[in-house]
Amino acid sequence: MTPTITINESLRLPLAPLDIPSRLLLGPGPSNAHPAVLQAMNTSPVGHLDPAFLSLMDEIQSLLRYTWQTENPLTIAVSGTGTAAMEATIANVTEPGDVVLIGAAGYFGNRLVDMAGRYGADVRTITKPWGKVFTLDELRTAVQTHRPAILALVHAETSTGARQPLEGVGELCREFGTLLLVDTVTSLGGVPIFLDEWGVDLAYSCSQKGLGCSPGASPFTMSPRAVEKLQQRQTKVANWYLDMSLLGKYWGSDGLRPAGSDRTYHHTAPINLYYALREALRLVAEEGLANCWQRHQKNVEYLWAGLEELGLSLHVEREYRLPTLTTVCIPQGVDGKAVAKQLLHEHNIEIGGGLGELAGKVWRVGLMGFNSRPESVDQLLAALRQVLPK
Amino acid sequence: MTPTITINESLRLPLAPLDIPSRLLLGPGPSNAHPAVLQAMNTSPVGHLDPAFLSLMDEIQSLLRYTWQTENPLTIAVSGTGTAAMEATIANVTEPGDVVLIGAAGYFGNRLVDMAGRYGADVRTITKPWGKVFTLDELRTAVQTHRPAILALVHAETSTGARQPLEGVGELCREFGTLLLVDTVTSLGGVPIFLDEWGVDLAYSCSQKGLGCSPGASPFTMSPRAVEKLQQRQTKVANWYLDMSLLGKYWGSDGLRPAGSDRTYHHTAPINLYYALREALRLVAEEGLANCWQRHQKNVEYLWAGLEELGLSLHVEREYRLPTLTTVCIPQGVDGKAVAKQLLHEHNIEIGGGLGELAGKVWRVGLMGFNSRPESVDQLLAALRQVLPK
Repeated sequence: MTPTITINESLRLPLAPLDIPSRLLLGPGPSNAHPAVLQAMNTSPVGHLDPAFLSLMDEIQSLLRYTWQTENPLTIAVSGTGTAAMEATIANVTEPGDVVLIGAAGYFGNRLVDMAGRYGADVRTITKPWGKVFTLDELRTAVQTHRPAILALVHAETSTGARQPLEGVGELCREFGTLLLVDTVTSLGGVPIFLDEWGVDLAYSCSQKGLGCSPGASPFTMSPRAVEKLQQRQTKVANWYLDMSLLGKYWGSDGLRPAGSDRTYHHTAPINLYYALREALRLVAEEGLANCWQRHQKNVEYLWAGLEELGLSLHVEREYRLPTLTTVCIPQGVDGKAVAKQLLHEHNIEIGGGLGELAGKVWRVGLMGFNSRPESVDQLLAALRQVLPK
Repeated sequence: MTPTITINESLRLPLAPLDIPSRLLLGPGPSNAHPAVLQAMNTSPVGHLDPAFLSLMDEIQSLLRYTWQTENPLTIAVSGTGTAAMEATIANVTEPGDVVLIGAAGYFGNRLVDMAGRYGADVRTITKPWGKVFTLDELRTAVQTHRPAILALVHAETSTGARQPLEGVGELCREFGTLLLVDTVTSLGGVPIFLDEWGVDLAYSCSQKGLGCSPGASPFTMSPRAVEKLQQRQTKVANWYLDMSLLGKYWGSDGLRPAGSDRTYHHTAPINLYYALREALRLVAEEGLANCWQRHQKNVEYLWAGLEELGLSLHVEREYRLPTLTTVCIPQGVDGKAVAKQLLHEHNIEIGGGLGELAGKVWRVGLMGFNSRPESVDQLLAALRQVLPK
């Protein structure tokens, strides 16, 4: 079949093979993937319905349940980045008119607000200055006032470095028949999480932070209570790609698939990323959650001490600081962007800048997954000593 | 911070490192990734706003334009698999009540029907038996009758192996002010496509077929006409993750971003998959589109001859057969599933079964991207000779 149209060769770009600088990623994510994870990702793909791949999916589900401390049958990886998993939580349980109450104390709380609105939710918000957290009393008052179908909170606000305590929130939600939805993007693998003990009904995360994986396959879980709301929907989930009533039939072990039935094709999974995610989760299980959390805490305390020694102050009150992400106040008179650029170009170290309320006011320094090591801290502090104005 | 809750160690799964069989993937996709693509994917991630990464995104855009033969500024990769890119086309230009006319002659046409309905479209369909294609006259009659805002056709129907001719359809659509949306999942890289010449307004594809990449980052493009419909929307795109008015600001070169403004963070791209996609597209450009298409055609003709020599017949009329995917009729009395299983387990070759109308009636054999080689054909034919009943 010879084409009758001439190929436009002016669009053809002659390019050399990939040449990417080697960076130490100490920003808000991605962090460097563990070398063993990259190696696993490098395995040649098999089919998305290959028995070997279906077994691997089962393993991912089990490993995710351990990492999140949940027994939710419907615990899977979404074939997209953390934002897709975020959208999956909202899309599956929100029906037009549902009251969704969102605790917005940072960029990602605000993203939830925008997202829930797109699914027809009657969105209510409670807010706090960026870097602060909600008290249980404040949450109780808000839930009493709004009687939401869903309460959404950000456990680890990537834009502020604050950790929202969740103790007691699940009980509060059950009292009012509310589903509890939690963002654990910057906490999974690095910060103690007990989804079942805390009564969390929906959670999502990403692969490239506490799990030390490459981005693109993102943890998602929903409790049997949340599955019930999905099953009772009057309308189809307004998102085909993220519809758990379809996805559950591909993943299995979901309570949505008739027992003994075959897995049903839904989409072609990002095979190699699932290899990587399985390896990243396996490494967490091998290390053990307690060790993994303690390692993150120990290394971040080492970082905090070093930063304070350099005369820098931290934005979040110590009690609520994340072990995975630290917001560092940019000193008066220092050009924050210039410092970050210099770290990147002269030292191959990436750190992040502030967003929203904190734009220009903080740097964001992540110590996550494989990168939560004393060597990362030493390397950053040494570079900062050279870059910061004396 | 010592957790006061005890970690449930019963959820901890002791697992060995990854052990995946090596398969020759000759099903409907994924196909085996090119070794150079896997090697590129293995590069350690950098940040999604790293200047090196932003340049790579620009390169992906240029390379995609060449491969699709389009000058559309908004040509990007969606951070999900082909189905996500499909949903992106529907989500961005469909507003509630829009008439969307879909040519459904296979599984993926039907998927478009389901998807468009979820975005509030007034869905109309024209149908054909699976494996047949629409004539231009049939399309004209349908467009005249339904006056759709969007006409959606599947260029390469992965479930049937049929190639829908698109010559003249763009002109027809322009006559009626209709946007032309085309599924090129199983054609991009393997089948002649001239998006601009054909007047296609929206197209999507995947990475793991004709491009010989790993799945998870999926080509998407929309014409300036389609961008105009997006910009004139009365409602927000009902999908945050796939909203091009946001994504365009991250990708740039889109007509949606104020000139000279910085790239805006939207989501953390699947960094390593973008490395892989860039390499896969670079290899297509290096080979040249004409050579690449001819290679696919030559190898599939070699396959067809071999299959016919084995006494097998093909489902689709020769003129409309895809060079990337062949549907082979399962002979009377042969257990199609058993043959496919035997090929997988005894010969490490994956082929696909039929879907929908063709379930149990055909095998689907793909020769796509890196796998479109005479060696693949030889290996399959040799295995079939052993497996097929004499």
